[in-house]
Parts: sequence; structure tokens; C-alpha cells
Amino acid sequence: MSTAAPGGQAAAPGRLFLVPAPLDFGCEQQAPLTDVLPQATLQQAARLTHWISENAKTCRAYLKRIDACFPLAAPLQEQHISELPRHVHKKGDHTQGNIPNWDARSLLAPLLAGHDMGLVSEAGMPAVADPGSSVVRAAHDLGVQVVPLVGPVSLLLALAASGLNGQSFAFQGYVPQDAAARTQRIRALFALCQSSGQAQVLIETPYRNPALWQALLHALPPQARLAVASGLTLPQAHVASRSVQAWRRTEWAPDKHTPTVFAFGL
Amino acid sequence: MSTAAPGGQAAAPGRLFLVPAPLDFGCEQQAPLTDVLPQATLQQAARLTHWISENAKTCRAYLKRIDACFPLAAPLQEQHISELPRHVHKKGDHTQGNIPNWDARSLLAPLLAGHDMGLVSEAGMPAVADPGSSVVRAAHDLGVQVVPLVGPVSLLLALAASGLNGQSFAFQGYVPQDAAARTQRIRALFALCQSSGQAQVLIETPYRNPALWQALLHALPPQARLAVASGLTLPQAHVASRSVQAWRRTEWAPDKHTPTVFAFGL
Repeated sequence: MSTAAPGGQAAAPGRLFLVPAPLDFGCEQQAPLTDVLPQATLQQAARLTHWISENAKTCRAYLKRIDACFPLAAPLQEQHISELPRHVHKKGDHTQGNIPNWDARSLLAPLLAGHDMGLVSEAGMPAVADPGSSVVRAAHDLGVQVVPLVGPVSLLLALAASGLNGQSFAFQGYVPQDAAARTQRIRALFALCQSSGQAQVLIETPYRNPALWQALLHALPPQARLAVASGLTLPQAHVASRSVQAWRRTEWAPDKHTPTVFAFGL
Repeated sequence: MSTAAPGGQAAAPGRLFLVPAPLDFGCEQQAPLTDVLPQATLQQAARLTHWISENAKTCRAYLKRIDACFPLAAPLQEQHISELPRHVHKKGDHTQGNIPNWDARSLLAPLLAGHDMGLVSEAGMPAVADPGSSVVRAAHDLGVQVVPLVGPVSLLLALAASGLNGQSFAFQGYVPQDAAARTQRIRALFALCQSSGQAQVLIETPYRNPALWQALLHALPPQARLAVASGLTLPQAHVASRSVQAWRRTEWAPDKHTPTVFAFGL
């Protein structure tokens, strides 16, 4: 099993679909799924009966919304939903060395039995700024076809709307929580902008948005351009991009509840 | 005009919509728009009558396809379509210093006259791996609301499907064409993977895909993971991810016609 050659085990393994989710997780208002997901994504999701999710409860809630658009191939109570282990959430997913005894292949048995599977996170694209890459990697290693479906990716919507350099950018994930280390990290990232023109994209757990915002205004030089995109795809969406100097003259700050993407550069 | 304060000119300026396009530009087969674009994106695009495009001809062809899904607010011959100047295409968009006499605000007059506008590139998301960020930036500077719409972004679909680190990655655009400089650049990028875990994402003009592929196989060490995503969202889509060592034992190579995204890491 652990050394199964690509394609060598089952006659016809299933495919692993990467199913994007809407960006309204944890938000009071929800947008219609058809606002943010193409019909083909919803139809494909409705055909699946086996899932690997960041959170099974969120996955079920999402399936319920899909069912209202396209009837599910199997009723909710008959869907097979497994969860990524807690320790692979957020930061532990990629570095295999940090995850003792975790073998993503254990979740992929249905694929080898011929079932298509869906990988889904709580919001946006699985395996991007979210757990799941270890599952994708394991699928490739088993010779399984991986099919990414189109849907919202907050990082990229934010970058496109920032006016920053979309031809060279980096997503840096989370910065340190310690104030001094965070300032140091932001300054190091801005040095990268200066040396290479690369735009820097960051996210934070929503309740730390205000702290990150203050840190950005403090650590970046006045001439840096700082963009923010809150509540993307939602009615309360807020996108703005201006110099740090100009931001320092405003009262605006992100709230503690709305998913927000931050980006900066020259 | 050139110093118009944000929001200070017209009573109600229009909004700038970033309208993603399907990924089948230049491909023989085209997928239905509803496979890759949410209904809300198509409906919003159909409402617009003023466009800034990478290429006016491609923009008209796209509008024709949109019209088949949702009737356009104005017939094709009455749509106002301006083009980004040649010299801001691809590499010149962001660095204003490189673009003498280019002021993106010259394209935004319809916004100030109260018209909503669409920014569109030939494939995927405008201003990401494509020109347009100078227009977005100018819109912000004029106090115009920027609204990114959901659609396919090949870079992110490829990254999600790669099994590489989606929690820290960089899009590096194009590498040098000179063989020695290209090898050096690829090795420098792989050093970044090793020092920080950051996955590296690259694209190339399709006719240079085979050369870049050979360079990657040559320059990366055997243990590096190399992923490729060709023809994403199309019937001929090909997504694969394996070690460089394993790739060297295969015959596969990307063709010269299909848009392809390359990614590598640990």
C-alpha cells in the first residue's frame, strides 16, 4: 500500500477534485453560490459523495447550499466526509517532518476504490492559504488525477484589485504575533519589494486584523503602497489602495470579523 | 485633471470591474463560459459598455461569447473598447518609470463621467500575470471603486493542484531566455524554496514551454518536486506533480501551443 506504484493498484481510480468554497465563512451575510461559483463547479460538486474537508460541519453546510442549486447525487446523511487532522490545519500541512504519523494517503482509500473525491476547505480554494496540499501531493503519488475547479480565491482577487505588481508577487501567509518580530518581518518583506519589485500579500485570522493593520501602518515607510480587501465578494466588500502616508491620515481600520487580505509594495 | 482629488470630480463616478476571461485564448477548443465563470460575473460583464482591454479584438470575441449567455446592454458595435498601449503589455505595466508619457488615467475618463468600466485581459484575471495594474492603481488614485469579479486564475489553479506549499509561494513571472541566465535564475529560486519553504510559480509564452521545461529538468536537483498544469479548465487539461528524478525518467514535455503553468518546491 505505502509503495503503490502510480496507477498500479486499482483498474480505474477516482479523481480528486479541488472544490472551492464561497468566501462568506463566518460572515453574517451570505452571497448566492452562483455569484461566486461557475455552474460547472457546482454541478461537479453535486456529483461527489466522498469528501476530505477542513471541517466536516462546514462541509455539510456547504453541501446543503449546493443541493439547493443542483441536487446532490447522495443525500447529506449518506455523504462520506472525512476531516483533515487538526494538526495539519493552517501551518502544519506542508512540512511533513513536523507531522508525526500523518500519512495523507489514509484519507484517499475511496479514490483507489474508484470513487471520485472532493477536497474542500472552509472558504476559498483548498490547498491555497489553507490546508490540503499534503492530500494533493499524496494523490499525485498514488497516480490519481487532480482536477482544480474554478472558484473564488481571495488572495488573487485582492491582488488584482490592489494596483500592486501582479507580475511578481509573494503570498507570505501569517506574520509573527509578537510585535517586535512582526515589525521586523514586515520591514524585511518591504525590503524585498524594494530590491525586486515583488508585491507582498498577507492574511491574518480576522480577530487579529486590527493589530496587523496598526503594525503595517507603523512598520512600512510613508511612500509604500498598502492595499486592503475586506469581505471580498460580499455586499460589505471594501477594497482600497493608497500610500501609507495617506492611510495614516484616515480613520479606517479593518474589523475583527471580516476576512481581510493585505498587500503592499511600491 | 492630473491632480483630481479622490472622488472630487464627478458626483458619482463609475466603478472599475476586473472581469476575468476564460483560459482558452489561442486554444483550438473552447469551453462553455458557464464552466469557468459564475453567473454573476457574466451578468455584470453583460451590463458594461466601456472597456479597457489588453487587446480589443480579443475583448470583442469575449463579449460575443458573453452575449450568447446574457444579452449585452449595448450591441457589440456600440461598445467602447480602448486598448492598453503596447508598451504596458507584459513587463512594462508596473514600473511607471519605464513608461514615458504613460498615464493610465487617460483611459479612465468614462469612469469620471459616471460609466462603469470593465478591465479585461486575453485570458484569466486582469492585472495578475497580465497587464492592467497601472489602470487599477490610477482608478484608486481617482477615488474610484474597484470590484474584482470571480473567474479562473491559472496560477492559483495550478498551485492548488500542485501539492506544493500553498501557504507560502511566489509568482516569479518569466525567467530569462538566455540559457545560462535561466539556469542561474532557476537555481536561485530553488535556493529560496530550501531556505524558506516557499513554492515558486512560473509561466512562459507557450512557444517557449519546451525550452523552459528542459531548463527546469536540468537546473533543479533530483529531489525537487516539479509540477506542471497545461490547458487548465480545457478538455485536454494535464496536471502532474512529481520529483525531478521521476520526471527525468518520463518522455512527457509541454507542447508549444498550450498555456502552461510550472511550479516547484520541496
